[in-house]
Amino acid sequence: MSAATAIERSVTVADVRALLCAYASVLDDGELGDWPGFFTEDCLYRIATRENERRGMPLPIMLCDSRAGLFDRVEATEKANIFEPHWYRHILSESEVLKTAADALVVKTAFICVRTMQDGAMSLFVSGYYMDEVARVGGRCLFRSKTVVVDQSRIDTLIAVPL
Amino acid sequence: MSAATAIERSVTVADVRALLCAYASVLDDGELGDWPGFFTEDCLYRIATRENERRGMPLPIMLCDSRAGLFDRVEATEKANIFEPHWYRHILSESEVLKTAADALVVKTAFICVRTMQDGAMSLFVSGYYMDEVARVGGRCLFRSKTVVVDQSRIDTLIAVPL
Amino acid sequence: MSAATAIERSVTVADVRALLCAYASVLDDGELGDWPGFFTEDCLYRIATRENERRGMPLPIMLCDSRAGLFDRVEATEKANIFEPHWYRHILSESEVLKTAADALVVKTAFICVRTMQDGAMSLFVSGYYMDEVARVGGRCLFRSKTVVVDQSRIDTLIAVPL
Repeated sequence: MSAATAIERSVTVADVRALLCAYASVLDDGELGDWPGFFTEDCLYRIATRENERRGMPLPIMLCDSRAGLFDRVEATEKANIFEPHWYRHILSESEVLKTAADALVVKTAFICVRTMQDGAMSLFVSGYYMDEVARVGGRCLFRSKTVVVDQSRIDTLIAVPL
Repeated sequence: MSAATAIERSVTVADVRALLCAYASVLDDGELGDWPGFFTEDCLYRIATRENERRGMPLPIMLCDSRAGLFDRVEATEKANIFEPHWYRHILSESEVLKTAADALVVKTAFICVRTMQDGAMSLFVSGYYMDEVARVGGRCLFRSKTVVVDQSRIDTLIAVPL
Repeated sequence: MSAATAIERSVTVADVRALLCAYASVLDDGELGDWPGFFTEDCLYRIATRENERRGMPLPIMLCDSRAGLFDRVEATEKANIFEPHWYRHILSESEVLKTAADALVVKTAFICVRTMQDGAMSLFVSGYYMDEVARVGGRCLFRSKTVVVDQSRIDTLIAVPL
């Protein structure tokens, strides 16, 4: 492999930001079918509360360990969607690089998500941070691992939608 | 034109972010007289709901097709300002580059805006995204087109203020 | 000093963003003991309302003029913490560079902070902007001066926690 190729294959902070931004956009546009495409095939996707995460308790609110599992989740979400229509809007804060490897970056990104109901009512939905490991696979940057750590302990509504 | 000049004249993502940031700052500082200066003379400024935008319905909540029209709007807003004082704070998420042209970039940027009344009460005001076409005119980056797509369908208070 | 050294010692926007991001992360993780370490020894830390700041009134809500003063504040906060547990989440908007000096940058960054109580209730806590002077001291970027300008005039709960 030439040096130029190696550079092309590395993951930069700008790559990670673009990935996060496109990811949030797909969720907010409600295009859940595109959501698994942001992950590697053997990915790890978890939603955990900050209290459990801090105590090192392994029990997540939600866990998928493959892209296929994410597709199953999308299907379940869409079938279960018997509520009135509503939309989400994710706002990302700056990303903190925690680890740099040859083929991956680990970054932490705080976020909030607000929800709007069909009648226009708007509310805070969830806050927390993403802990992401981003790798380049076949030229595309993807989430090899994504942990969504939420500040809220009430989790019932969280299970229904990808974050 | 030399190559160096061409490079100076191109629009970078950093330029767009600086423009968006200064734009939000002017709105949040309440300096509405400076607002039209962020647009090209023959600009297009629209506020639309996400539902109408998604359906391709052309009816915007608000439409101005020139900088002069924006000045008119500022004047109307300031004359109509008979409410108790309040302030806005825009928070920008990351920007997604959707199109790159020789002299312009098209970017999508999610945002939320919170409002604070004089008594200190704070509330979510609006969420949505900007769809911006940014060009460089006379050395300055400006909005050639700005569409504010809002998640909320209740629009009465939205008409009063630039977003 | 060689030119290469000078470049290494300059403060870039990326440095400032990384500092702001790490700063917010420490506050949101509740690691207040690490908070003073983000400031130079002879720093200036102020919290002010936007109305007082705009009128040029010098009375801040809070003022510390040294890192030692910040440590005192942390101690007072931790001793006074008799409330039910709660957590904050800061979301940073883009940063606007206002001044560039050889050894420092002055930047303005809008932010909001949401609060989550132990029962999971989530609310808007404060919005405003940071006005920061960031310098490099001993290889590390630190806040030489940080003014937190808040949009809200009700200040009682603000005094208790660093922002």
